[in-house]
Amino acid sequence: MMARFERFLSAGLILGTIASAPIAIAGAAGEPALLQEARQVLAPLPHDFGTPEFPVTAERADLGRKLFFDPRFSSDGTASCSRCHLPGLYGTDGLAKPHGNHDKLNPRNAPTILNAALQFKAHWRGDRENVEDQAKQSLLGAASFGNPDFATAMARIKAVPGYLPLFQKAFPGEADPVTPENWGKAIGAYERTLATPSRFDDFLNDKTGNGKAGALTAAEERGLRKFIDTGCATCHSGPGIGGGSFQKFGITADYWTETGSDAHDQGRADITHDPKDAYIFKVPSLRNVAMTAPYFHDGSVRTLPEAVRIMAKLELGATLSDEDAGDIAAFLGCLTGSVPANFAEAPILPPGAFTQDAPNTVEPSKR
Amino acid sequence: MMARFERFLSAGLILGTIASAPIAIAGAAGEPALLQEARQVLAPLPHDFGTPEFPVTAERADLGRKLFFDPRFSSDGTASCSRCHLPGLYGTDGLAKPHGNHDKLNPRNAPTILNAALQFKAHWRGDRENVEDQAKQSLLGAASFGNPDFATAMARIKAVPGYLPLFQKAFPGEADPVTPENWGKAIGAYERTLATPSRFDDFLNDKTGNGKAGALTAAEERGLRKFIDTGCATCHSGPGIGGGSFQKFGITADYWTETGSDAHDQGRADITHDPKDAYIFKVPSLRNVAMTAPYFHDGSVRTLPEAVRIMAKLELGATLSDEDAGDIAAFLGCLTGSVPANFAEAPILPPGAFTQDAPNTVEPSKR
Repeated sequence: MMARFERFLSAGLILGTIASAPIAIAGAAGEPALLQEARQVLAPLPHDFGTPEFPVTAERADLGRKLFFDPRFSSDGTASCSRCHLPGLYGTDGLAKPHGNHDKLNPRNAPTILNAALQFKAHWRGDRENVEDQAKQSLLGAASFGNPDFATAMARIKAVPGYLPLFQKAFPGEADPVTPENWGKAIGAYERTLATPSRFDDFLNDKTGNGKAGALTAAEERGLRKFIDTGCATCHSGPGIGGGSFQKFGITADYWTETGSDAHDQGRADITHDPKDAYIFKVPSLRNVAMTAPYFHDGSVRTLPEAVRIMAKLELGATLSDEDAGDIAAFLGCLTGSVPANFAEAPILPPGAFTQDAPNTVEPSKR
Repeated sequence: MMARFERFLSAGLILGTIASAPIAIAGAAGEPALLQEARQVLAPLPHDFGTPEFPVTAERADLGRKLFFDPRFSSDGTASCSRCHLPGLYGTDGLAKPHGNHDKLNPRNAPTILNAALQFKAHWRGDRENVEDQAKQSLLGAASFGNPDFATAMARIKAVPGYLPLFQKAFPGEADPVTPENWGKAIGAYERTLATPSRFDDFLNDKTGNGKAGALTAAEERGLRKFIDTGCATCHSGPGIGGGSFQKFGITADYWTETGSDAHDQGRADITHDPKDAYIFKVPSLRNVAMTAPYFHDGSVRTLPEAVRIMAKLELGATLSDEDAGDIAAFLGCLTGSVPANFAEAPILPPGAFTQDAPNTVEPSKR
């Protein structure tokens, strides 16, 4: 236990707060059972990710679900949230970097939307405060929705008549509820429902204190032990198994050398303009990671054991055997939950044609 | 009845076969009831669209459903069948013309995939024989999937390890089942399950002989009467309410003048190189038409009453009042069925990263 914690300290550079589950070593007497040790750094998922500021209401989540899947509010009518966050690929798109409106390439890999609302910031560089902020700003993102301004985006929504009543229900009492803020709140409320508990939560939640029998396979238990002892859990901690802090990618060696990546992404330094933030990224959640290849902010690595091996080397200075990397990858497989039904099933959208150019809310004159 | 049939004859130019429900006037004695008259030209949907040549097996349809939703087999990893045939928009994309791989613009509007297998040909110009042929050829379509050749497309499939067992199950006994033909057969089998019976089928299937009470509203019954009497049902006939013949768009006037369309699409003449086929297109099915704006092969019209008015004028020389166009549009609304559950719900896809360039089935060497 101490060995792991020292490694945590020497890894240094923990810039954010480790989410939810502070590391408590005081109570550990001797070598604790795997479950007890896991509970010190890892935590089960909550039922949803609503907060007092951003509550999950049925009306908001239902509206947000429709907006999430609707491509008609982008500059070319093809970019929806679901374009890069596909249900069938566990909320990712299988690409190294996603293509947004008009085939514009996004600079970084599309992370899964599942459990995304759990994270302490959104986007790889943490330049979005939460899922609401992320959804709102994506309306104008040059490589995402590409609207020239919020007014154009809202006019596109208003041009589909079925949406106004849904905004009115979700945001009662507001004179003009079709706003960029409410777009963000509705999609955020929907995303705050997308929790994917897995067999690992069964293991953590076990009442016997020994882990639910059969919840994990022997290889997964071996992998969990190695995940903790290698030091992975120092950053990939809490209910998200990550998503709670920033960290430098490449503490003990350069990531672009190791991954063959052809770009040196400055990461958070581009946001803060502080050279000390070079190569700093948000630590991603590892929930469902077995289903979300390719890996890393640049999507440069195709397989999970390879990603595990590289992370151990670059972040912890550890050289994993193929067996160790395989066991840890096996453990990560038990973080795969079920795709929520309200994500797998596409909502039926209010009908209406995409508004190609200027807002068109008026019936064309008889031509 | 005779007035309608004369109009059918004078409209002329029926080049294909009217699907399934031949017009029988011999048995009509006096003014028939609306149901009886409707049954002479329109027909209920079958349960599925399997044939002895193209059977629907569970294994093929399940595989085809996955392939339909998977974007990783296109040149840029973004184009799947579902990119332009979204469940939430009833198997269309809301666009005048769809954008395929690398934002390439397709020349014609994306028709719904629902009930598409019922049609006598595929594509607006009928240059695809059936849904199997359409799916196969889309792999190479410059503006759809954009693969340089079938070998590249098949290599992309084989690079996702989870697919081979599914092809083996769907096409047992074949040494190398991952072929373009089987891609087409699997997606075709899936599409042959996508039937959307509606309240209109309840009306047609009624055993009492008077139409199921309450199946249609008064406005819908008025619209059906006008749909038949105006002559719409001469081409929009059979179980698809269309989809069974070719017809000229613009018999009594030029479509591009009436619709404001900026291109003169030569239609089927580009396929046959016969000037007599100029402006000839497949008559589309009107199933679910209320949910699939915008309209026509060029997506030039945004609303259904406007589309009805234009069709009556250009095809039948009839000038409809707003009330008549509204009633016929109301009738068309009763052709809206439920989106099938196996289309609304996205299948979970075998995991794996998109193969960006050359086929990559080999684990990258330790880097």
